[in-house]
Amino acid sequence: MSDDTDTGMVYLVGSGPGDPSLLTVKAKELLDTADVVLHDKLPGPAIIESIPESKREDVGKRAGGERTPQEYTNDRLVELAKAGRTVVRLKGGDPFVFGRGGEEMEHLATAGVPFEVVPGITSAIGGPGVAGIPVTHREHASSVSFVTGHEDPTKDESAIDWEALAATGGTIVVLMGVGKLPAYTAELQDAGMDPETPIALIEQATRPSMQVAVGTLDTAVDIRDEVGIEPPAITVIGEVATTRERVCQWIDQTQHHHFEQIETQDQS
Amino acid sequence: MSDDTDTGMVYLVGSGPGDPSLLTVKAKELLDTADVVLHDKLPGPAIIESIPESKREDVGKRAGGERTPQEYTNDRLVELAKAGRTVVRLKGGDPFVFGRGGEEMEHLATAGVPFEVVPGITSAIGGPGVAGIPVTHREHASSVSFVTGHEDPTKDESAIDWEALAATGGTIVVLMGVGKLPAYTAELQDAGMDPETPIALIEQATRPSMQVAVGTLDTAVDIRDEVGIEPPAITVIGEVATTRERVCQWIDQTQHHHFEQIETQDQS
Repeated sequence: MSDDTDTGMVYLVGSGPGDPSLLTVKAKELLDTADVVLHDKLPGPAIIESIPESKREDVGKRAGGERTPQEYTNDRLVELAKAGRTVVRLKGGDPFVFGRGGEEMEHLATAGVPFEVVPGITSAIGGPGVAGIPVTHREHASSVSFVTGHEDPTKDESAIDWEALAATGGTIVVLMGVGKLPAYTAELQDAGMDPETPIALIEQATRPSMQVAVGTLDTAVDIRDEVGIEPPAITVIGEVATTRERVCQWIDQTQHHHFEQIETQDQS
Repeated sequence: MSDDTDTGMVYLVGSGPGDPSLLTVKAKELLDTADVVLHDKLPGPAIIESIPESKREDVGKRAGGERTPQEYTNDRLVELAKAGRTVVRLKGGDPFVFGRGGEEMEHLATAGVPFEVVPGITSAIGGPGVAGIPVTHREHASSVSFVTGHEDPTKDESAIDWEALAATGGTIVVLMGVGKLPAYTAELQDAGMDPETPIALIEQATRPSMQVAVGTLDTAVDIRDEVGIEPPAITVIGEVATTRERVCQWIDQTQHHHFEQIETQDQS
């Protein structure tokens, strides 16, 4: 046997938005069969607690509250694979939508570790969907753009061109959109976007504690504070946000009871 | 028993990009338990052929080749639910990413039919991901925009503002991006986008017959013709498209053998 055949395998796996039934069939199988699962808090408690504790490694916040450096996670993935382990790197949503999965993938390739990408449902699409908001609509939105409210803090200025995003005329979805809501709703209005443009704020998308608040670009900050929307939450900006009020009476609510049961079982 | 309790339920379900293992756990369960599954060709043969033929209703192309009118599908969903059936409306990718799921949802709500949305992985994210291309990257792309190359033919002019999309500086992903490739690559260059901007074309994303071709905005049409990229395919435009060449040697190929087995079994 050559050295090569001793090397394990890394799966970069998206967990989806948090409801365990929105894991893919492949992600579920890999979580069951992997030797080790490296994760942070983003996949959410229902999914994380379904993984046997003996194979979990938390690479999110460390004791003391500071974040695990990305370099540590990169190196740990290589170390485990070189030791012949089958490793799942579990990321919230999709690994490649603001997830730093690209950096991890390139690190693995540079180190000569075989890997596979297993996409997941991004909360930026699945969250609004479950809440009755289609991110595109033949009549209202010919494009949809995703941006993050949490930018790289080492950058001098925002790399996001809100004026260009406003000019697209399509839906805008902001992930991690709570903290900087006052800044970007103002920037979009300065860029000429109608203050009456509908918006929706969705907290804990697809989870039992999901909360949705609707308003306009102009009232977004007040509504966030009245309803008490807290991170993690996404903001949907555009005409499509009005769909919810026309349909939400008919969205089946039993899914939420189902979630609560899952969580109770996991915590017992 | 009141009339209400006799009404069934409609699930608007995304199939993901075509690999059956990228169905969600919930979608898989619903396909197993539903009374009827209304589908078109977009979910792909491996998924469609795994559904018992007795419960499939094809609402895509009809005999003679013309499309089933959207109104027929809307009315059929209501009719089946009112007859007490549990109905899955299976859509390729995610139901709300250029899928007309929004119109179907509003029709159900207007008719008073309870429904639930079950998101799926859009090929616009999962397709590039599996091919080694992250749609966002901390260094290269702070936003990603999705548009369709297939617009509503009843519209007088394109509703897509390519100039604004170019100005965002983020990744652009065009779904159904083959036919109009010459038009929009020219429009993006006219809007000032660098002709050397990297692009990737991905045909049959995540399926055994997946093909990927890389080039630049300037060479995109030649590359499409040389490699023979055909619909359904997506186009990724932006610096992230260069990631593939740095990682593809290490992307595990066994997944494709796995797909081929699944297809062979289904067809036997």
